[in-house]
Amino acid sequence: MPQISARARRIPPSPIRKLVPLADRAKRAGKKIYHLNIGQPDIPTPKEFLEGYYHAPEILAYSPSPGYEEAREALVRYYRRFGIALDKSQIIVTVGGSEAVTFALLAVLDPGDEVIIPEPFYGPYNGYAEIAAGEIVPLTTRAADGFRLPAREEIEERITERTRAILITNPGNPTGVVYSRAELEELSRIVREHDLFLISDEVYREFIYDGLEHTSVLQLPDLEEQAILVDSISKRFSACGARIGAIASRNEEVMGAAMRLAQTRLSPPTAGQLGLTCYLNSPAYPRKTEEMIAEFRARRDLLYEELRKIPGVRCVKPQGAFYVMAELPLADAEEFAAWLLTDFERDGETVMVAPGGGFYKTPGLGRNEVRIAYVLRREDLKRALWLLEEALAEYATVWAERGEAASRA
Amino acid sequence: MPQISARARRIPPSPIRKLVPLADRAKRAGKKIYHLNIGQPDIPTPKEFLEGYYHAPEILAYSPSPGYEEAREALVRYYRRFGIALDKSQIIVTVGGSEAVTFALLAVLDPGDEVIIPEPFYGPYNGYAEIAAGEIVPLTTRAADGFRLPAREEIEERITERTRAILITNPGNPTGVVYSRAELEELSRIVREHDLFLISDEVYREFIYDGLEHTSVLQLPDLEEQAILVDSISKRFSACGARIGAIASRNEEVMGAAMRLAQTRLSPPTAGQLGLTCYLNSPAYPRKTEEMIAEFRARRDLLYEELRKIPGVRCVKPQGAFYVMAELPLADAEEFAAWLLTDFERDGETVMVAPGGGFYKTPGLGRNEVRIAYVLRREDLKRALWLLEEALAEYATVWAERGEAASRA
Repeated sequence: MPQISARARRIPPSPIRKLVPLADRAKRAGKKIYHLNIGQPDIPTPKEFLEGYYHAPEILAYSPSPGYEEAREALVRYYRRFGIALDKSQIIVTVGGSEAVTFALLAVLDPGDEVIIPEPFYGPYNGYAEIAAGEIVPLTTRAADGFRLPAREEIEERITERTRAILITNPGNPTGVVYSRAELEELSRIVREHDLFLISDEVYREFIYDGLEHTSVLQLPDLEEQAILVDSISKRFSACGARIGAIASRNEEVMGAAMRLAQTRLSPPTAGQLGLTCYLNSPAYPRKTEEMIAEFRARRDLLYEELRKIPGVRCVKPQGAFYVMAELPLADAEEFAAWLLTDFERDGETVMVAPGGGFYKTPGLGRNEVRIAYVLRREDLKRALWLLEEALAEYATVWAERGEAASRA
Repeated sequence: MPQISARARRIPPSPIRKLVPLADRAKRAGKKIYHLNIGQPDIPTPKEFLEGYYHAPEILAYSPSPGYEEAREALVRYYRRFGIALDKSQIIVTVGGSEAVTFALLAVLDPGDEVIIPEPFYGPYNGYAEIAAGEIVPLTTRAADGFRLPAREEIEERITERTRAILITNPGNPTGVVYSRAELEELSRIVREHDLFLISDEVYREFIYDGLEHTSVLQLPDLEEQAILVDSISKRFSACGARIGAIASRNEEVMGAAMRLAQTRLSPPTAGQLGLTCYLNSPAYPRKTEEMIAEFRARRDLLYEELRKIPGVRCVKPQGAFYVMAELPLADAEEFAAWLLTDFERDGETVMVAPGGGFYKTPGLGRNEVRIAYVLRREDLKRALWLLEEALAEYATVWAERGEAASRA
């Protein structure tokens, strides 16, 4: 029997994979689950986006490999609003942010090459690195330090002969951290000095709270050759299923590589590009996106307030995106997450969270953490957090009883 | 300045890349171009497909990573019509056929591993192989032999310690060859004996003429562990821009790998899946697809008849798909293809063809060949072939004159 590749074996399954059958079983048994485990916003897609969708042409033909001219022009205008000057040739439309990250890694890594990524990081990066046959070198950041970047020396210690790039998520998923201009300038100096690329995943670029300002990697001076932006409209236009993202860089060789990769996979989806163009060119933009972000800020406030009240729970107040990494008063968050689905309920309801371990590359880290996505309406979020508090109390009792039983045995 | 990866440098650009600016210039100058160069059908997408599209949900959410249940169930029924029994768990919806091939190669190749592919082959395979950091070992087939597979010994000669799979396109693009049951059984014996995977790209599986029967790799007995089907709805539903394909196998490890890859890229596009489901469940299916294929058969007949009449042109009559590899009476088809756009015209019209070299891995092969896609209405196809005949005659004169001028100099 022929064997699959070692690479394919290493690609980690989704961190919640083990939980999905448990959730399905709970749902079949009539339990209601509040999903705090995935970044799927509950906000309707702007109707101006869907209108673009509805005007599908008579023949659903391939679009140009880098995307329709109109879509790329709309993106040029979009970035200009944020003070990022790009030419159309410096943007390629991708199949979601996932393809943008994959293109960036394939463009800069050869098999065995390394990319430094601050952890905890977005789980699928592990898969993109395996696709590129590259190695992720984690740069651990800690809740106790607010998940800020460590000092320059600690970053440079991780640079080897095989290092080709540093990849950051800004704002951070799962940390909610927004990197300061100073932090980015420090990274900028490091990549220039060590001749590395700086890849910045800015999927949550507009989800910024507390009056902070977002600095894009494309706004840093003297970084034309190093900076690669990967992006997605999934969250900001609540259009995850449209599968539209982008890769942008002023480095011509990088864009040449991205273009050849884009030609290889032929084209991004037609409908999502038409939706993007229609919404960005409509008077509803940016109002609807701004309203959505205001709602997420309110949810963030609520989440942080409620979470702090739960005994033993600790977390860093998110400055952006819509996630929080929360430390729970227990040893094994994966077991707890499963127990929430199999054993716990209040009035037929429970919550689902993502265990923290899947967001770390360093073995053992994140075991007592969970990622909570605040993608529910405030009343649902409040209920979900109450359920979490009840669950933690009950779980502590269960454990105390088990402990007693064990010590009696 | 940081350098892009060696892999990214090797990914070949589209074989017509050099021609596109020339075509754009010709169009701007008012020339009409008959596109025989790409496999973009001109047939309207079935309205039942577009209806699915139009019923986009209020929130364009992520679909499940392997695709919506309904889409996978519709595909199970689709394959059953062709005598292929599959369980839903043996099918994953992909972002076009391109992602299906990429998943298959990533699932079976580690960096440096080899895959044997009969040439001439579909150009983007080079890119998918580079993404997987694998090596394509070409198995040359020849027009003189009707592009049939060579004898067993010739195939086995190419198998090394690093060989992991044989990849075929059936029916063939660009050859139009439909492999016989006997040829497939021979391949089946070879892969079983040498413990390889047999990946079959059956994107054109329904485009079969002359009463021939298509044999799917999933119909071969005792090949459950080896057989991987890669597929796409782009051509048969005239929905290239929907970006919907599939990977199917009865090998659980392969499907496990494909599932982890699918989770890594989150989900395939929502709209295309809704379109697929709506069309496959409508009374219009399979009628509209069959009508389309009848039209392609008529085009094939016309193309072959007309092409044979052109002095010096030779080709194998295509048995399937909608391409023909034609040998032209000249030395450099790439130069000729460019000249068609820059210098030739009749009443302001010309044709565009794909130079043959891009379909071969072995250097030097295909130089006097072009791929012609018969994706135009018959009257347009007839006109395009007349233009090609005129062009070949004029080109011969130009060359004769250049030759004389050179010999005088």
